[in-house]
Amino acid sequence: MRFGVNYTPSRGWFHHWLDLDLEAVRADFHQIAALGLDHVRIFPLWPLLQPHRGLIRRSAVEDVGRVVDVAASAGLDVQVDVLQGHLSSFDFYPTWLQTWHRRNVFTDPDVVAAQADLVRTVAAAMADRPNLLGLTLGNELNNLVAHNPVTSDEVDAWLDRMLAACYAADPAHPHVHSVYDATWYSDDHPFTPRASVTKGAMTTVHPWVFSGDCAGRYGPLAPQTTHLAEYVVELAKAYADDPGRQVWVQEVGAPEPHIPGEHAAEFATRTLRNVLTCEGVWGVTWWCSHDVDRRLLDFPPLEYTLGLLANDGSDKPLATAYAKIAAEEHVPSRRTSALVFDGTRSNSAPGGAFFEAWMRQAAAGRRPAIVLADRADDAGHLAARGIEEVS
Amino acid sequence: MRFGVNYTPSRGWFHHWLDLDLEAVRADFHQIAALGLDHVRIFPLWPLLQPHRGLIRRSAVEDVGRVVDVAASAGLDVQVDVLQGHLSSFDFYPTWLQTWHRRNVFTDPDVVAAQADLVRTVAAAMADRPNLLGLTLGNELNNLVAHNPVTSDEVDAWLDRMLAACYAADPAHPHVHSVYDATWYSDDHPFTPRASVTKGAMTTVHPWVFSGDCAGRYGPLAPQTTHLAEYVVELAKAYADDPGRQVWVQEVGAPEPHIPGEHAAEFATRTLRNVLTCEGVWGVTWWCSHDVDRRLLDFPPLEYTLGLLANDGSDKPLATAYAKIAAEEHVPSRRTSALVFDGTRSNSAPGGAFFEAWMRQAAAGRRPAIVLADRADDAGHLAARGIEEVS
Repeated sequence: MRFGVNYTPSRGWFHHWLDLDLEAVRADFHQIAALGLDHVRIFPLWPLLQPHRGLIRRSAVEDVGRVVDVAASAGLDVQVDVLQGHLSSFDFYPTWLQTWHRRNVFTDPDVVAAQADLVRTVAAAMADRPNLLGLTLGNELNNLVAHNPVTSDEVDAWLDRMLAACYAADPAHPHVHSVYDATWYSDDHPFTPRASVTKGAMTTVHPWVFSGDCAGRYGPLAPQTTHLAEYVVELAKAYADDPGRQVWVQEVGAPEPHIPGEHAAEFATRTLRNVLTCEGVWGVTWWCSHDVDRRLLDFPPLEYTLGLLANDGSDKPLATAYAKIAAEEHVPSRRTSALVFDGTRSNSAPGGAFFEAWMRQAAAGRRPAIVLADRADDAGHLAARGIEEVS
Repeated sequence: MRFGVNYTPSRGWFHHWLDLDLEAVRADFHQIAALGLDHVRIFPLWPLLQPHRGLIRRSAVEDVGRVVDVAASAGLDVQVDVLQGHLSSFDFYPTWLQTWHRRNVFTDPDVVAAQADLVRTVAAAMADRPNLLGLTLGNELNNLVAHNPVTSDEVDAWLDRMLAACYAADPAHPHVHSVYDATWYSDDHPFTPRASVTKGAMTTVHPWVFSGDCAGRYGPLAPQTTHLAEYVVELAKAYADDPGRQVWVQEVGAPEPHIPGEHAAEFATRTLRNVLTCEGVWGVTWWCSHDVDRRLLDFPPLEYTLGLLANDGSDKPLATAYAKIAAEEHVPSRRTSALVFDGTRSNSAPGGAFFEAWMRQAAAGRRPAIVLADRADDAGHLAARGIEEVS
């Protein structure tokens, strides 16, 4: 079981790439490693990697490599997200995609070709680093859908092309894509569960308690909130064709005021203990490492206090709780009974009938798996997953 | 009379700020100085100076100062445009103004306060440099109007605030703003001639031959095209309250295909000889120094060949023509007769009745001044300008 953190640089947030101070990064990474964590997920900025179509900055790609190498010196493995894209409410578009040059990032042939070039370039540059975990195409790129209308078929084609670019340059590492929860909860969202569970090496989930207002609807320490990550992992497993496909809890966090600060450690402890009962979890990557410096304005309020560590690098109770869980032995247990889900996404969102049915079982101390309705009679599928009864 | 050039870095275009190579800049500047020119206008990028509201990068401001200092070592004075903003069809918005954080750059109080901070910071950092000419608020910021709706009153308030920020930090240099031709030609455009001729230390004009399709309408070497800069200078003088207010021809160039390459040198020679007959011209700043590297994609085609110098730094016939003019003695002549203009902007645009009336006189070898209709009977105004007859 891997435990890591999404790395939010303590100085300058992700603008640190503009003035990259490797000693500051090293200090951050040593604070992270001191918690007993084994990996970080890092986020270069698209406009710095590729400020012009036709211009990939070698120096920016080298900067990414330098950060990966500094992580190695701190004993940390690294996941590199390539296309940011979207981070904490801020969208980073290169100027060649702004205003007069606005083009759809998922469907414009020239844009897609340029993205594939960038993904290939970064993958090739990182491939030989011994502490590389793999690439994510970008952080929650489905956040860009609102400004780049796209169909599911177009998303699928885009994901296939970008993942092919990754694997062409680096076939040896597991590469993935990532999405925010609309994929699991919104009926018409063009990034689909099927894409999440079939494309790339693993399924990634980002079960945020503000999605569908889960924590607001049920309470910060309610079963529906503290079982949410577990639930989304099981939901992802239900959609998968391959019963052995791993799920990465790539982002999970304790956002205020949804989770009041005084409950953050307890929320984390319960959430992690619950999700770690699931089979097939590759690991957990907490969001995030360091609180955002309050001198950086305009973030949604919740973003300032998501760190395991304060902005000055000092531990928060959340860090202690996470470190304690990370140090424990984790033995997942096979789920032999499953609830049947009809596959309508809104039904599985917080407040949805299926969500609530599953959570009633969880609150009662049971840990059901989930089976899609069209597989409820598929003996082979059920057997492969160890499911003995469906209801 | 000052002759200079708008500096388009030969390597990486304005993205050179991301990987600033002062030796490459020095080589560019020595090529420019070798033409006998005395100044450059330079263009930092807003997202690099101020990547977050609340974060002005000291290193980026220092980079601007380093470029100014390198210019000094090449014998060149420097105008610094602060807020880019807009350059050659590309808009550079910091991420804190994109998509989910979209706010009006002219009217949002927080945005305006941040801009004023940046202007003040850059002005203070440049103030003591002996080769500083002054600051321009930004390059043709009225190009941003299309995506930031704004009234004339709001533009005026914004210009006043930004110029005040310049002068608060650096009262000793002449600071200006700049506009593309909609100010002079479009009736409803919120950046007004009055703002151009009353705010800041000088009036700047950018008489481009593609505006109003001047060159296309009349021909690349037609009088209407080669007298255009002269005409716009006289138009700007007509609007001014202060008869002594100087006009800076801050951008003028020979864009293909409007001016076919084989006519560029002749167009430049005629345009400059014509405009240099005007009294009150501070100087001319050609657009631009270096052709854009064709490996940088998506520019409007005309942008690739606007340089006095090829992308490899070699002279073009245009450079020879411009250098020859710059080396000549220029004696402007007083214009004692003036045409009366009613002040309706579209009337003064290429194709407009007033434009064509003025150009008929120019084609016939006369060089009329321009007087606004509401001043045609103002003896004091006419006398101050040396105008003896109006028609």
